Amino acid sequence: MSSVAIVGATGAVGREMLAVLRQRGYPLSKLRLLASGRSAGSTVHAMGRDLRVEEATAASFRGVDLALFSAGASVSRVLAPAAREAGALVVDNSSAFRMDPDCPLVVPEINGHALASHGGIIANPNCSTILLCMALEPIRAVAGLSRIVVCSYQAVSGAGARALEEMRAQEEAEREGRELRHEIFPAVIAHNVIPFVQAIGDDGYSTEETKVRDETRRIFGMPDLPVSATCVRVPVTRAHSEAVHAGTLRPLTPEQARQAYEGRPGLVAWREGFPTPRQAAGGDEVHVGRIRADRVFEPGLALWCVMDQLRKGAALNAVQIAERALGIAAGT
Amino acid sequence: MSSVAIVGATGAVGREMLAVLRQRGYPLSKLRLLASGRSAGSTVHAMGRDLRVEEATAASFRGVDLALFSAGASVSRVLAPAAREAGALVVDNSSAFRMDPDCPLVVPEINGHALASHGGIIANPNCSTILLCMALEPIRAVAGLSRIVVCSYQAVSGAGARALEEMRAQEEAEREGRELRHEIFPAVIAHNVIPFVQAIGDDGYSTEETKVRDETRRIFGMPDLPVSATCVRVPVTRAHSEAVHAGTLRPLTPEQARQAYEGRPGLVAWREGFPTPRQAAGGDEVHVGRIRADRVFEPGLALWCVMDQLRKGAALNAVQIAERALGIAAGT
Repeated sequence: MSSVAIVGATGAVGREMLAVLRQRGYPLSKLRLLASGRSAGSTVHAMGRDLRVEEATAASFRGVDLALFSAGASVSRVLAPAAREAGALVVDNSSAFRMDPDCPLVVPEINGHALASHGGIIANPNCSTILLCMALEPIRAVAGLSRIVVCSYQAVSGAGARALEEMRAQEEAEREGRELRHEIFPAVIAHNVIPFVQAIGDDGYSTEETKVRDETRRIFGMPDLPVSATCVRVPVTRAHSEAVHAGTLRPLTPEQARQAYEGRPGLVAWREGFPTPRQAAGGDEVHVGRIRADRVFEPGLALWCVMDQLRKGAALNAVQIAERALGIAAGT
Repeated sequence: MSSVAIVGATGAVGREMLAVLRQRGYPLSKLRLLASGRSAGSTVHAMGRDLRVEEATAASFRGVDLALFSAGASVSRVLAPAAREAGALVVDNSSAFRMDPDCPLVVPEINGHALASHGGIIANPNCSTILLCMALEPIRAVAGLSRIVVCSYQAVSGAGARALEEMRAQEEAEREGRELRHEIFPAVIAHNVIPFVQAIGDDGYSTEETKVRDETRRIFGMPDLPVSATCVRVPVTRAHSEAVHAGTLRPLTPEQARQAYEGRPGLVAWREGFPTPRQAAGGDEVHVGRIRADRVFEPGLALWCVMDQLRKGAALNAVQIAERALGIAAGT
């Protein structure tokens, strides 16, 4: 049995972490819900009762075995070391430690071996990275990878609960002929698409696009892999999609690729039809469809993949890391 | 002065053709609105009065100088030759003649020279192709092109007025907790994305994806250009977007690329920020933004482009073809 703290318990990912712990029968002896001072004092229903949310401080982690962080990089930078010093294993969903060589960056199905040694903090990858790596790992294992072009179709809930409210308010304003306002996103998202996630760097790439490249290289252990991304927000409630065009080192037919997905946990390869965000939302699987020979990369493959970015893209992957690092059998 | 017939006058593109003729001051002596028997008898407001829509038949084109077709490939295959035999110049927005060597496939800003010889039928390209070619032409002219990966974000209105109604009905059903139905699209489009436009061929590519490749090759006069596309419908009302990753033959910095757009009619290159469908809707320009060095294609560039697919993607390009082929000065 294990004492668990969730930092950022009132956020979209924090709530999903709670749901994942319950659904997987994680052996909880105690649950501590932590958040910023603003959210402290509110209650969250969990473990059959209403739990009070406490303010996260350096003193919050005494007796905690596992601390799941999802409260942003600045919070993680301050409090994750404190949690580690108090003896907790930290699994951090922010970008704070993802490129830190002392902190493994892990998708358990791909590089779970990296958990063999860590300094107490393990980083959970960006959701767009998890989708891309999960979808390509069976192909990489069989045929290798030479380069990746990926374009994302990212759900509004990836920017949090307030972003969803913003989209709904815009839709209502549009129906009623009122002015459409935006605050969370840099443009109206209702019935629109925004080719911009987070911020744009000096080289013209967005933070998200650079994360996808750098984290994919680290997870695959391929520091020179060329990865070119365009990350786009679309007016989808939940579940991210990606169109992937990838070069392989060795030829692989679409049928051989589909076979490579068989028996892979967490993956569903579609032989007919195509997965959409509505089909992936709420589920744990990464769906891969439209596998075909690429027309630019020879040898290479093109495919379409979809995943609930709050589940496998965040909360589920974090809990899977914890289970594996702590030697806890998955409940599902 | 010229007598013009519009075939498919009650459809989304047909109505836009009417608007474009008016806005550009096209020298109309007579206007004949044609449609299927189902729509015949309805009226459309144009040229300051209500015009009656007649059923399109082989006999509809006597005395017509210009016939603009946008009623689907099967109608064009039957009636476009009849219109041509009656002496009309045909500009056809369907896929019927796009790969026919006797029918030029034209974007006037790119290969207007192809209008120098034609057999009476000129094909208007697919909207996704027009966007891609317009966005890449200034780069192609300066640095050449070696390969293209393109992922589209296509508006619902590209599938017609009934498709828009379907999306709105789904949004209403979702708000009211009713079951979501779909008929026009192969999945629910409201708050979803569908990686499927038209139909899937034996090679796994959709009709739209193959059109983009084949038509781009023809317009650029590069029959072997590798073009790999993923075409996706998104819940946007109007204006298509594309994320483009392209290899060039010679190096070109993003700044040199932005300069290549200067003075190009119909194109707006964004130096800061990014264009979205809401900004492009209703306008005539192709907007190009987020120009950056590609991370996979070296030399190469990545960019984001947006265009109202009913204007430059269909009606405007068709009228521009007619103006140029008939030697009529553009009114705007």
